[in-house]
Amino acid sequence: MLVVHHLNNSRSQRILWLLEELEIPYEIKKYQRGSDMLAPKELKEVHPLGKSPVITDGDVTLAESGAIIEYIIEKYGAGKATPPAAGKLDNLFFTHYAEGTLMPILVNKLVFTIIPQRVPFYIRPVANIIFGSVSKQLLEPNIETNSKFVEAHLAKTKADFFAGGDHPTSADYQMLFPLEAIKQRAPGHLGPNMKAWVDRVHARPAFKRALEKGGQYDLAS
Amino acid sequence: MLVVHHLNNSRSQRILWLLEELEIPYEIKKYQRGSDMLAPKELKEVHPLGKSPVITDGDVTLAESGAIIEYIIEKYGAGKATPPAAGKLDNLFFTHYAEGTLMPILVNKLVFTIIPQRVPFYIRPVANIIFGSVSKQLLEPNIETNSKFVEAHLAKTKADFFAGGDHPTSADYQMLFPLEAIKQRAPGHLGPNMKAWVDRVHARPAFKRALEKGGQYDLAS
Repeated sequence: MLVVHHLNNSRSQRILWLLEELEIPYEIKKYQRGSDMLAPKELKEVHPLGKSPVITDGDVTLAESGAIIEYIIEKYGAGKATPPAAGKLDNLFFTHYAEGTLMPILVNKLVFTIIPQRVPFYIRPVANIIFGSVSKQLLEPNIETNSKFVEAHLAKTKADFFAGGDHPTSADYQMLFPLEAIKQRAPGHLGPNMKAWVDRVHARPAFKRALEKGGQYDLAS
Repeated sequence: MLVVHHLNNSRSQRILWLLEELEIPYEIKKYQRGSDMLAPKELKEVHPLGKSPVITDGDVTLAESGAIIEYIIEKYGAGKATPPAAGKLDNLFFTHYAEGTLMPILVNKLVFTIIPQRVPFYIRPVANIIFGSVSKQLLEPNIETNSKFVEAHLAKTKADFFAGGDHPTSADYQMLFPLEAIKQRAPGHLGPNMKAWVDRVHARPAFKRALEKGGQYDLAS
């Protein structure tokens, strides 16, 4: 039986969505973030990197969202997550782009917001100046460029999903977490087609089942 | 003809290595970083994200290292970059892990080193304290965990390349840039098997040809 080692409020929610969408039997083993927001040590017993998502499937232990999604689709997908031929390259691109380019920028936006709040109070004013300036000069323009790019792609495809078809493919499973993060943490950058895409995913029965099984997940609210 | 839009000192050096290794004909169009270390605006004319690597191949314009490497191997690889059956999952994992997990940490190490050097001199002492503390508490333990994980994998495979075979596969092309970065910027974290792997890649005739064609590339020194 495939087991999803699922951390609350994390990228592994998209693995649950994929499994529900493809109607693949699985078990969930749940892990809760500590008060420091980090994954608990027990995850290190599953995989040495100690992060989520990670799955076990018989002898296989596999981490890294993109790898897990591709593994599940290839082994259990039965063609249900195959992109249309014309969207194969878009699917390949967005499958890598979600974690290779977009997520690191969004994680840094979060880190750069949190750090000034956590330094000793007497250096907080200087910290605010430094991190505010880096955000403005480096991060915000980067989020803007990337959001406009994603928005333009969705506007151009004129289809429901990233690869241009009528069903989600690996690109959609990968893109869910970063687009939810933009909706929550940088809503000014969420274009109308991005918003429609997130709403469309959230309305799917499979997504709702995954949410119920995964438990607390702030990004879908 | 496949064209690599190649930025000096960038992740696109690994695309040149791949093309030389597979003996695929290609052209290079070179771009130089500005004094701000960023990619020049001309790259935005090739792809809206304005980054490198990006390739054009007839009607296809494709960015994102992982996507480019998979595209080239599938279209032109003729089986030469196929992983052994037993290493297929390792290949899948490291192909995503290189940019999805390892690179963002290494980029942040660089960013967190550069920022304190660029703030006005009168807040530099406070900046050094803040960024030094974040590096020590957050980044360094993360680099250590990941380096040990990569080292353990290479020690375990007892083979020349990441997927356990005698020739490079997509995992190796993806892992080259982050492992070169650890060798240069965090040499204390470079384990003996990681060092042997980097040296082995750098000794390959195809890598040397790629280096000659790509021009200035600090990470290979």
